[in-house]
Amino acid sequence: MSTINKLSVGIRRFHTVASRLRKYVELTSVRYPLLKRGNFSFLSDRHLGFFQSILSAHQVLTDELNDLSGYNVDWMRSVRGSSRLVLRPKTTEEVAAILQYCNVQNIAICPQGGNTGLVGGSVPVFDEVVLSLELMDEVISVDELSGVAIVQAGCVLEKLETVLHLSNLALPLDLGAKGSCQIGGNVATNAGGIRLLRYGNLHGSVLGLTTVLANGQIMDCLNTNKKDNTGYDLKQLFIGSEGTLGIVTQVALQCQPKPSSVQVGFFGLNSFENVLETMRLSKTNLGEILSSCELIDQSSLECVTTQLELRSPINNFPFYMLLETAGSNASHDAEKLNSLLEILINNGTIVDGTLAVDSAQAKNLWELRERISEALACEGYVYKYDVSVPVRQFYQLVDDMRIRLGNLPIRCCGYGHLGDGNLHLNITSHEYNPILLNRIEPFVYDWVCQERGSVSAEHGLGLKKRDYMEYSKSPTAIHWMRRVKKLFDPNNILNPYKIFPEQSSTD
Amino acid sequence: MSTINKLSVGIRRFHTVASRLRKYVELTSVRYPLLKRGNFSFLSDRHLGFFQSILSAHQVLTDELNDLSGYNVDWMRSVRGSSRLVLRPKTTEEVAAILQYCNVQNIAICPQGGNTGLVGGSVPVFDEVVLSLELMDEVISVDELSGVAIVQAGCVLEKLETVLHLSNLALPLDLGAKGSCQIGGNVATNAGGIRLLRYGNLHGSVLGLTTVLANGQIMDCLNTNKKDNTGYDLKQLFIGSEGTLGIVTQVALQCQPKPSSVQVGFFGLNSFENVLETMRLSKTNLGEILSSCELIDQSSLECVTTQLELRSPINNFPFYMLLETAGSNASHDAEKLNSLLEILINNGTIVDGTLAVDSAQAKNLWELRERISEALACEGYVYKYDVSVPVRQFYQLVDDMRIRLGNLPIRCCGYGHLGDGNLHLNITSHEYNPILLNRIEPFVYDWVCQERGSVSAEHGLGLKKRDYMEYSKSPTAIHWMRRVKKLFDPNNILNPYKIFPEQSSTD
Repeated sequence: MSTINKLSVGIRRFHTVASRLRKYVELTSVRYPLLKRGNFSFLSDRHLGFFQSILSAHQVLTDELNDLSGYNVDWMRSVRGSSRLVLRPKTTEEVAAILQYCNVQNIAICPQGGNTGLVGGSVPVFDEVVLSLELMDEVISVDELSGVAIVQAGCVLEKLETVLHLSNLALPLDLGAKGSCQIGGNVATNAGGIRLLRYGNLHGSVLGLTTVLANGQIMDCLNTNKKDNTGYDLKQLFIGSEGTLGIVTQVALQCQPKPSSVQVGFFGLNSFENVLETMRLSKTNLGEILSSCELIDQSSLECVTTQLELRSPINNFPFYMLLETAGSNASHDAEKLNSLLEILINNGTIVDGTLAVDSAQAKNLWELRERISEALACEGYVYKYDVSVPVRQFYQLVDDMRIRLGNLPIRCCGYGHLGDGNLHLNITSHEYNPILLNRIEPFVYDWVCQERGSVSAEHGLGLKKRDYMEYSKSPTAIHWMRRVKKLFDPNNILNPYKIFPEQSSTD
Repeated sequence: MSTINKLSVGIRRFHTVASRLRKYVELTSVRYPLLKRGNFSFLSDRHLGFFQSILSAHQVLTDELNDLSGYNVDWMRSVRGSSRLVLRPKTTEEVAAILQYCNVQNIAICPQGGNTGLVGGSVPVFDEVVLSLELMDEVISVDELSGVAIVQAGCVLEKLETVLHLSNLALPLDLGAKGSCQIGGNVATNAGGIRLLRYGNLHGSVLGLTTVLANGQIMDCLNTNKKDNTGYDLKQLFIGSEGTLGIVTQVALQCQPKPSSVQVGFFGLNSFENVLETMRLSKTNLGEILSSCELIDQSSLECVTTQLELRSPINNFPFYMLLETAGSNASHDAEKLNSLLEILINNGTIVDGTLAVDSAQAKNLWELRERISEALACEGYVYKYDVSVPVRQFYQLVDDMRIRLGNLPIRCCGYGHLGDGNLHLNITSHEYNPILLNRIEPFVYDWVCQERGSVSAEHGLGLKKRDYMEYSKSPTAIHWMRRVKKLFDPNNILNPYKIFPEQSSTD
């Protein structure tokens, strides 16, 4: 099984586990009783008639029991809306016609890609009309020489990757959710993942976008040049705006040459100081071929090995690191990795470890990292935090949280993209426990804020994290974000209730 | 002499050559008679008194003959303003106080960094007050582990590079102008240069910015985390906005590990097909260590060798390429480059060439590329075009232009960042010739537009290219740029007359 398939199977398996554990999902409007529905129109037969007049039958879904349930619930099954209508446009022009009508009729819209988000950003909160991009899944063009791909927004990431491989190209991003997530959603949420260390974020990799604005205007910024300094780079505004400023319908992406050599190593370390030293020397010695630098703590590894019966080649270390290289020359890459390991083993920084000898072993090692989230879900309720912190303090938050929580949770663990300073802090309990939650929050946000970290490194704010924006953004910045939102979507029809904290009437 | 010094000496030498050739620079208001001064306040003693009350004496320059002339003229000596006042704040708060006052008093401002731009963006058009960042030149912090540097906007790029080298870090951008240009100006103009191929553009490398808005508000977006998805990434708006949306005062930059091995090769090729093949195989075989892929045509090389008496190791080829690698292991890098060359020489793609054996030779080879602009200026007037075009058509524009211009110019040549699809098309004549200009324009813009290229790849629009924005941007995009400008700077006090085409009264 290839790495690609492994990951998407992981996602599917996770779906199954999750739905087994929590069949029924409470309505968001019930779980969050303070949320008030905006003053939007309720869907009428007249509205429905209009949509049916501009779209084919299979593009308009209204059967709540059979068709809509999957669009109303997130994949973590943590939030549930009550939309009565899913629209599935096939072209930018259809998206434009829908938005123009909704803007005039004051109908709220929830844009949806692969619905793999973790913060409740991609499902309706109340009865917003779901605008799914899933039928816009065409890879329009791939230029092998320049490495530029033009893709419709609804194209699943894994499909795009498969097409790129045919041209000896690789995606500049890689996610566990790649079997389901869509490139448009990746752009709208500025998705990160395990290759960001190497290729940077989407603000650098996205060359152009076509977006449809709230008023139905089509904004063609589908630049395919690597360099273009002719006025403001407006497309940047839509990257990471979580569907609140416009709907991405086409993406021009700068892809990378496909590496011909990939190596994966998995190591045990006795202290966080040794982890930092390993990271530092990896960056120096592996230099341009380092493609992943991941941390797994003992508790996370224990969870993934016991819950999912995975086998770890080494055990009983407080910390584990997964290092990956991707390069153009296998013997050079091996020599670099070996000489790094010689240093690290000789000076006692790394105590034990293993190098994958083939892709099957590499896959097994990656599973120990990639399936932690799935394993944690098996324990019951998971309190998930995705934060950026200065790398020296990377693990301090986990230690501090453990002391603070004592015996309250089943587990408090940390893992993540060490090389990018991005920690996934996870805490589990048998079931949702508000007392535990109140011990965690706002402590965790205060902690991150004090270190000038980010309270959402890669997951975004969506609905579930929107009240914590101020921990990472200045009041002036938030004020101007609101003004930009008002400029592009004065009626607030695009993904309402998301990103921005609820405003008091005096704001 | 190090590469660093070479380049800044190049710039200084260029200044001397240019000023020797054209002592007198016509006022912009005379050369562009259709330009109308905006309805801004004229500087009064009361205004001056205010600025003198909040700044020290050496921060307020008013001596037109001795102090102001350098701030009023661009380094190409192609545009000249008539500002009567230069303000040189030392802190973000001083910038804020200046802007708040100017906004209330309706005083136009021209922000100025190192004044190394090529499109007349950094000098006043009429009597705008110059706000120079040159006294804000502090490197605030460098974190060796994360690679993040925090710098005041007025820090000269070369100074920052020197400081970074002490921490074994390298800048993600490199420019010929690095001895004079400032990081804030680089950010404001989204500067490109010779390392973009490797490290991408500033939209990816800039982690955070402090900017002062037109109304004097300080917008703190000085994020230092590699990942931060907490709301709109507003700082992106200021990258490449050429000082029209706010004034950048501090920059947090993601730096790179300093490569321990750098190799430079210079090759002669008999056809553009061979150039493309060399680029393609370089990307594949050099992969992650390729750091520059530059093209020089015969005419450009001839100019640089005759005008500046530089010696080329090879001659009489229609095309030359300069390839550079930067990596972490000298023997691996050499092996990769040698095996590439073996393929290219064996199949006849490359006919002749040389590899630098030391940094002095590398410097000499780079001079053949970096000093072309200086050499061209020696011939008289230079018509400069900086365009992005699909790489297959990279040289076609030069061929087409030669046919079109016949014997009118002295020279029509092309060179540039081939690996990024960025062509510098240059045409020279003994003196400014409007007949020649009318043969070139708008033909060149139409040509680029037809190929969906960019009419300004890295130089920006400033004053001199502002009327050509529509060749690379859609009407909807331009409309929304204007709305964004209006939102952030309703009184249009920040760098007026720049970027946007003159609007007709019906717009």
